[in-house]
Amino acid sequence: MKTSGFAATDANMPLQPFSFERREPRANDVAIDILYCGVCHTDLHMTRNDWGGSIYPMVPGHEIVGRVSAIGSAVSRFKVGDPVAVGTIIDSCMQCDQCRRNEEQMCRKGVTLTYNGQDRVTGDITYGGYSSHIVVREEFVLRVPDGLDLARAAPLLCAGITTYSPLRNWNVGPGSRVGVVGLGGLGHLAVKFASALGAHVTVLTRSEGKADTARQLGADDVLLSTSAEQMASAAFAFDVIIDTVPYEHDLGPYLDLLDADGTLVIAGSLVDTPAFSNLRLIGARRRIAGTPSGGIRQTQEMLDFCARKAILPECEMIAIGDIGKAFERLERGDVRYRFVIDMASLPADQAA
Amino acid sequence: MKTSGFAATDANMPLQPFSFERREPRANDVAIDILYCGVCHTDLHMTRNDWGGSIYPMVPGHEIVGRVSAIGSAVSRFKVGDPVAVGTIIDSCMQCDQCRRNEEQMCRKGVTLTYNGQDRVTGDITYGGYSSHIVVREEFVLRVPDGLDLARAAPLLCAGITTYSPLRNWNVGPGSRVGVVGLGGLGHLAVKFASALGAHVTVLTRSEGKADTARQLGADDVLLSTSAEQMASAAFAFDVIIDTVPYEHDLGPYLDLLDADGTLVIAGSLVDTPAFSNLRLIGARRRIAGTPSGGIRQTQEMLDFCARKAILPECEMIAIGDIGKAFERLERGDVRYRFVIDMASLPADQAA
Repeated sequence: MKTSGFAATDANMPLQPFSFERREPRANDVAIDILYCGVCHTDLHMTRNDWGGSIYPMVPGHEIVGRVSAIGSAVSRFKVGDPVAVGTIIDSCMQCDQCRRNEEQMCRKGVTLTYNGQDRVTGDITYGGYSSHIVVREEFVLRVPDGLDLARAAPLLCAGITTYSPLRNWNVGPGSRVGVVGLGGLGHLAVKFASALGAHVTVLTRSEGKADTARQLGADDVLLSTSAEQMASAAFAFDVIIDTVPYEHDLGPYLDLLDADGTLVIAGSLVDTPAFSNLRLIGARRRIAGTPSGGIRQTQEMLDFCARKAILPECEMIAIGDIGKAFERLERGDVRYRFVIDMASLPADQAA
Repeated sequence: MKTSGFAATDANMPLQPFSFERREPRANDVAIDILYCGVCHTDLHMTRNDWGGSIYPMVPGHEIVGRVSAIGSAVSRFKVGDPVAVGTIIDSCMQCDQCRRNEEQMCRKGVTLTYNGQDRVTGDITYGGYSSHIVVREEFVLRVPDGLDLARAAPLLCAGITTYSPLRNWNVGPGSRVGVVGLGGLGHLAVKFASALGAHVTVLTRSEGKADTARQLGADDVLLSTSAEQMASAAFAFDVIIDTVPYEHDLGPYLDLLDADGTLVIAGSLVDTPAFSNLRLIGARRRIAGTPSGGIRQTQEMLDFCARKAILPECEMIAIGDIGKAFERLERGDVRYRFVIDMASLPADQAA
């Protein structure tokens, strides 16, 4: 299947138009016309090979929304025309204990990533959602429920599940006191989710200017993390803190805000956690955890929850030709709150 | 009540004989003749003011076993002659949510420590178990169950509950895969407890020479943490790791050994945790936690468990006059596995 998209050809080059072949659907595959694809910070890191392991040409994109264009002979859950979505993973062994408990993202045999992964059948490198089509096995295709705006749904597939998953796994609900550190793509969704789950939500920010926005997003309170006084007054005030800050930063001051048995969940930072005093953990039996997005069942639950609660990311729609500029703005944090590529903007001569 | 003991008079002096007055029992107090007192690493740090906040003269000791010598008029649960024990805490507010959920060690108003604390009624500084008697309110006195050797039970009151508590709080039982880092006062009890709880227990040690001992204590396996090969082969092998190492050390290699959703519990180190990569936490949703000993109900449960399962610490009995030498040996890790002071060794002219 002839497919057009944008690709990075090496770590230093801007993304550029790229044509390639997608496989024809296998028996259990769903072929999808991509309508929208969110722009994740990971895309920026991966195209630049910031973490090593990048394979070129690379077609990024793992926040994909579209419509089914064809189905394999054994597909039972989807039909042509269905609104569907694909997130960060597109295959796993489906046999191991993690897959069986619906945690495919932690598959013992290694999950297949939506891009820069390796197809389990052919061994081909996978290409992501900055493209006109994608072909994914049925079990990894999400249903977009009725009523969810397709144009704005895309960021739910990575930023969404990455924040929804820890809130659910740490049993956030009515009565929970949740702190959210950072108010970007992940953080603004963490606020919406935690609020919709019934928690009391506080945004921790270094910038007083974000207070109004935080409240508009659903925060009950805003705490200025640069104010020693405000931080001291919030000691022991949270059951769960979702930390979405993507760069290295001191966790110590946030640990002090956790109540007994509280957990700080690292959702945004793939770098180092600097040294901290164990006294900040021991006295109140506090915990630090990492979180790796979520499995397919939980991702579907999240989409259904969003439809039911009318939760959508705040998005800035862009044409794919502007992806270079979007990456630059992303790098300096200049986006409220997630770029979404309108795939109708793919150059006409590239259209499949 | 005239009481004799040993005290530190400042941070640089060896402990020396010290006579002082204990209060007469209040209505809800139990007076105890101290038979044995364990020597905890904390005693060494506190007498030297390593953490600041030490108040002199200081009578250390919070692993106390003895017999009831008198009771206040309102005491209902103990009678004269009962074998009893006192641990690290002797009072709390008894009103807050933490006290009400039997976690007095995390009392909102601040727990009263057995020594270097402050009596909630008089404001006097509390004196610990390196002494002939102690007077403690009934609710903070533990019952030593029948069949538990009084001479060896003392270390259970701190080293014991500090390792038993996380094993219970993290639901260790049959099928659990538990790693224990460090094989000292805390570590050797963690091995015994985890084994008695039905877990598969692996001791992680830097010293090949400890393998036999580890197995004698109940370990099913021993992993040489200096062997890159052995460590690599144990990736994802543990549900819970109890880290009892008391000095600053890199957690990274141990984090890699945790399975998905596994927890490394810091039980021994009151210093810093050095920087580590968040990738070690995020991919498998791992956690790091601190643990602050346990509450009174759980401490009693632990003592009862020890009697039922015939669990006792390995102890080296000393006379109180040898406490200086014991501190020196403790500092270089030369004890298997806990010093216990036989309080009958208090100088005769000091005997109360």
